[in-house]
Amino acid sequence: MNRFVFGAFAMALSAGSAAQSFSPADLETARELRERSLESGLGYEITADLTTRIGNRLAGSENDARAVDWAVATLKAMGFDRVWTEPATFPAWSRELESIAITAPVSQQLVSLAIGFSPPTPDGGIEAEVVMFDNLADLEAAPAEAVEGKIVFIRQRMQRARDGSGYGPTVRARSRGSMVAAEKDALALVIRSVGTSTNRFAHTGAMRFDAGSRRIPAAAISNPDADQLERLIAMGEPVRLEIEISAQINETYTSQNVFAEITGSEQPDRIVALGAHLDSWDVGTGALDDGAGVGIVTAAARLIAEHAPRPKRSIQVMLFAAEEIGLWGGRAWADRYNEEIEKIQVAAESDFGAGPIYEISARVADDAWPVIEAIQRELAPLGIALGDRSRTAGGPDFIPMSRYGLAAAALQQDGTNYFDYHHTINDTLDKIDPEEMAQNVAAYAVFAWLAAQAPVDFGSGEKLLAEEAVADAEGGEEPSD
Amino acid sequence: MNRFVFGAFAMALSAGSAAQSFSPADLETARELRERSLESGLGYEITADLTTRIGNRLAGSENDARAVDWAVATLKAMGFDRVWTEPATFPAWSRELESIAITAPVSQQLVSLAIGFSPPTPDGGIEAEVVMFDNLADLEAAPAEAVEGKIVFIRQRMQRARDGSGYGPTVRARSRGSMVAAEKDALALVIRSVGTSTNRFAHTGAMRFDAGSRRIPAAAISNPDADQLERLIAMGEPVRLEIEISAQINETYTSQNVFAEITGSEQPDRIVALGAHLDSWDVGTGALDDGAGVGIVTAAARLIAEHAPRPKRSIQVMLFAAEEIGLWGGRAWADRYNEEIEKIQVAAESDFGAGPIYEISARVADDAWPVIEAIQRELAPLGIALGDRSRTAGGPDFIPMSRYGLAAAALQQDGTNYFDYHHTINDTLDKIDPEEMAQNVAAYAVFAWLAAQAPVDFGSGEKLLAEEAVADAEGGEEPSD
Repeated sequence: MNRFVFGAFAMALSAGSAAQSFSPADLETARELRERSLESGLGYEITADLTTRIGNRLAGSENDARAVDWAVATLKAMGFDRVWTEPATFPAWSRELESIAITAPVSQQLVSLAIGFSPPTPDGGIEAEVVMFDNLADLEAAPAEAVEGKIVFIRQRMQRARDGSGYGPTVRARSRGSMVAAEKDALALVIRSVGTSTNRFAHTGAMRFDAGSRRIPAAAISNPDADQLERLIAMGEPVRLEIEISAQINETYTSQNVFAEITGSEQPDRIVALGAHLDSWDVGTGALDDGAGVGIVTAAARLIAEHAPRPKRSIQVMLFAAEEIGLWGGRAWADRYNEEIEKIQVAAESDFGAGPIYEISARVADDAWPVIEAIQRELAPLGIALGDRSRTAGGPDFIPMSRYGLAAAALQQDGTNYFDYHHTINDTLDKIDPEEMAQNVAAYAVFAWLAAQAPVDFGSGEKLLAEEAVADAEGGEEPSD
Repeated sequence: MNRFVFGAFAMALSAGSAAQSFSPADLETARELRERSLESGLGYEITADLTTRIGNRLAGSENDARAVDWAVATLKAMGFDRVWTEPATFPAWSRELESIAITAPVSQQLVSLAIGFSPPTPDGGIEAEVVMFDNLADLEAAPAEAVEGKIVFIRQRMQRARDGSGYGPTVRARSRGSMVAAEKDALALVIRSVGTSTNRFAHTGAMRFDAGSRRIPAAAISNPDADQLERLIAMGEPVRLEIEISAQINETYTSQNVFAEITGSEQPDRIVALGAHLDSWDVGTGALDDGAGVGIVTAAARLIAEHAPRPKRSIQVMLFAAEEIGLWGGRAWADRYNEEIEKIQVAAESDFGAGPIYEISARVADDAWPVIEAIQRELAPLGIALGDRSRTAGGPDFIPMSRYGLAAAALQQDGTNYFDYHHTINDTLDKIDPEEMAQNVAAYAVFAWLAAQAPVDFGSGEKLLAEEAVADAEGGEEPSD
C-alpha cells in the first residue's frame, strides 16, 4: 500500500516541472512494458540457462570462454540489431585448494576459501600461533612485534542492511588485510567471512595489492568457524592454525565484453547502457552475482525490442568481463570510449542479486533531474521510490568511466539477504525468487525505454566531471562487489 | 497462552485419578527444578564445551576416544555418585574424500558427501550416464537393463514437518538404495540429500547392508545440486557424472558408553535412564546431533543433584557410543542388561536437536499411565502437551532394549528445522537457541525427578513385551537418526 501512497505524493510534488517530459504514447508504452515484464519469466529463464549450462565462470577460466560463447549465441538468437564483443585483458588467478585446521589446543578442520590473488603457502603449509584483531584498523595500529611470525585473524562481523552498507566497512579486511599484515611480517591472514549468513559457507573475493607491495597467503573462514576460533581464543590457551593454500597467479588472459544493441531511430549513436557482468567467482554458480543481472538487463532489452516501437536513442546491453577480479571489463570499456563519453545518455548496472528494487537515484545534469522524477512516477507502481540525487557510478563496471563524468542511475535493490549468498558456494539459482526478478526486469525496461525517449540528454562528460566524482571512482571506497 | 489453557484442561480431566500420585513435597521440588533449569545455562554450556573442545567425533575416530575422555572428566567434575564406562564394539568406517562432477552435457562440480559404509570407487573413479528415479520404490520396480552399467540418481525430496515424519519415507533411498541398485548392476548411487535445507550442504548418514549383500559406491548431493541435475536431465541430452569416493572400512573398534548416576535412596537398583549419544557424524561439530542431547540430559541430572533431595530411585545419564553407524552403544547396553530389564523404571533419549519440547508420550504399563499424566501436568507450564500412549522406544539407542519390553517416554521436540542441519557440515553450535535448550533441560529434570519418585513401577519387562513392540524394534522402520 505504501508504495502507491508514495507514488501519488511524488506526482503531486513534481507534476509541474516534468509532466510534459514524455509523450502520452511513450508513457503508454512504458506502462505496457511494465505489465508485460511482470508477466514474463524471461529474465529468470536467461539466468537459469546460464547457471545450468555454464555454472561458475571465473575470469580467465575455461568457463569464462564458454560463458562468452553462450552470451553471444543467446543474444544473437534474440534478434538484437547488433551483437559483438570487445576484448578485455587482465591478470588471471586460479584456486587449487585451501585447507585451514586448528592444531592447538584442539584439532578441528575449518571451512575456508582462499581470497582471490592469495599467493600459495610454502611447501608443507604454514603452522603458527594466531593473533586476533577486532578489525583492520586495530591491525594497522598494532606494533610489528605483536604480529611478526604469527597468523593474523580479523574477527570483524558484517552487519545486515537493506542497502548492503555493512559490506564496505568490513570488506577492507579482505581487500587490504594481506598487505597490512605482510608489512608487519605476519605469516598469513585469516578473516571472518564478509557475509551475513550463519551457515557454514566461506566468502571469497579479491584482494587488492599496490604495485610493489608484498602479500601473504590469505583466506576467509565461515562465520560458525570464526565463532569457534573466538571461543577457543577466549579459553586462554594459545591457539594455533595450519594453513595450506595452493593457487596459480596465471599469465595475462584476454576475455571479451559482450554487447547487444537495439539501434535507435533518431539518435543511433546516443546510448542507454544497461550493464551486468558475465564473470563470477569460481564457487557457486554465480546466480545472484551476477547471473541475475545478466538475466535482468537482457530480458529488459529484449522485451523493449518485442513490445515497444524502435526507441529514439540506442539501447545497449553490456555484459562485462572480469568484474570480480578488478573491473577489467569496465576498465576496457572506459579506455575505449571515454573520449566519446557524451554519447552515453545514462548507464545503469544490475549487480546486487535479484531482490526487489525499492528506489531509483541518479547522477545527471540539473536539467535532466526532472526527467528522472518523471521516470520514477512510472516506476512507482512497482514499489520504487525516488532516492537522493546521489553520486552513484551506476554500478561497479561503470566506475572506471565515472571518472570522466558518466551520467548514471542506480535502481537500488533490496540486499537484505544478498550477503547470505554472495561469493559463496551457495550462490545458486534456487536463491532467486522469479517474481522479484520480474519486478527488476520491469523496472529496467521502463527505465531504459524512457531514458531512450527522454527530451534532454543526461549530461555525460564535462557537465558531470566534478571533483567528488573522480574521488568516488578512484576512491577510498571499496567497490561493492 | 494456549499452553496454560491446555494445562488447566488436562488437570480438570484427570485430577481424580492421579492427583495423589506425588507428595506435595515432590511436586514442589519438581516446580523448583523447572524454574532453576529455565534460569540455568548449563545445558548449553556443556554442548558448547563438547563441540568447541572436541568437534566432530565419528565412532571409531581419534575424536571418539577424546570425546569419551571428555565425558568421563566432565561427569566426574560434576560430582555424580558414580561415573563409569562399558565397552561397545563395532565395525568402523572412515571417509577420505568424495568428488562428484557433471561431465556431460556440461562440466560442473557438485557438493556431495559419501554415505557411511560406501565402498570406495575403483582407481580412476566411475564415469557413466545417469538414470533418474523418483524414489526407491521406482528403482526397485525398474528392469535391470534400465540400470545396468549406469549411475542411479534418486531425486525424492524430503518434506518438512514438526515431528520429523518426512525423514522415514525419504531416508530409505540412503539406507537401502546402494543394495537395491547393486542388485541391478548399477555402478554407483547418487541421492538428493535427505534434508529440508535449500542451502548447499550435502547430508551424510549410514547405509544398511544385509549380510552377504553387495553394495556399490553411494553419495548424497546437496539439494541445489540435485535441482541442477534435474534441470539438466530435463533438457533431454544424456547426462553423465564422474564419481570418486575414497573411504576405509576399518577393523573392529571398541569405544565406550559413558554413564553417570545419582544413586537412589530407597531403590538404588531401579533406574531412570536418560539417554543421548556421544558420537556424531564426521562433518559439522555434532552440535544438534547429538551434542544438544548430551547437554540436555547431563544438565537435567546435574540440576537434580544440586537442587533436589536424593531421589528414591537412581537416575542415570547414559551417553551412548556409535549410535550413528548402527546403534552399537544401545545394542551393547541391551545385551548386557536385558535380563535385568525390570530394573529400568523408564528410558528417554534426547536425540532430535534443541528445539522446544511440545509433547510427552510414553509406553508404560496401564497402571502407570496416570503417573505420566501427572508428570505432564508439571510440564504443561513449559508448553508441553499430553501425547498419545504411543509405542515409542524412547529414542534410537533404546530401540535394541525395546524388544525386551522397555518402559519408555518420548519428550517430543519441535524438529521443524532439525533436518536443515542434521548430518551436514552446518551442524554447529550457533544453530542452538540457548533458551529453547533450557526448556528441554527443565522438561528432562522434571520428568526424571518425578519418574524416580513415582508411586508405581512403569512396567519394563514381561508386562510390556507385546508383539508390536518387537516389530517396532526390529522394524521395517528406519531409525530416525
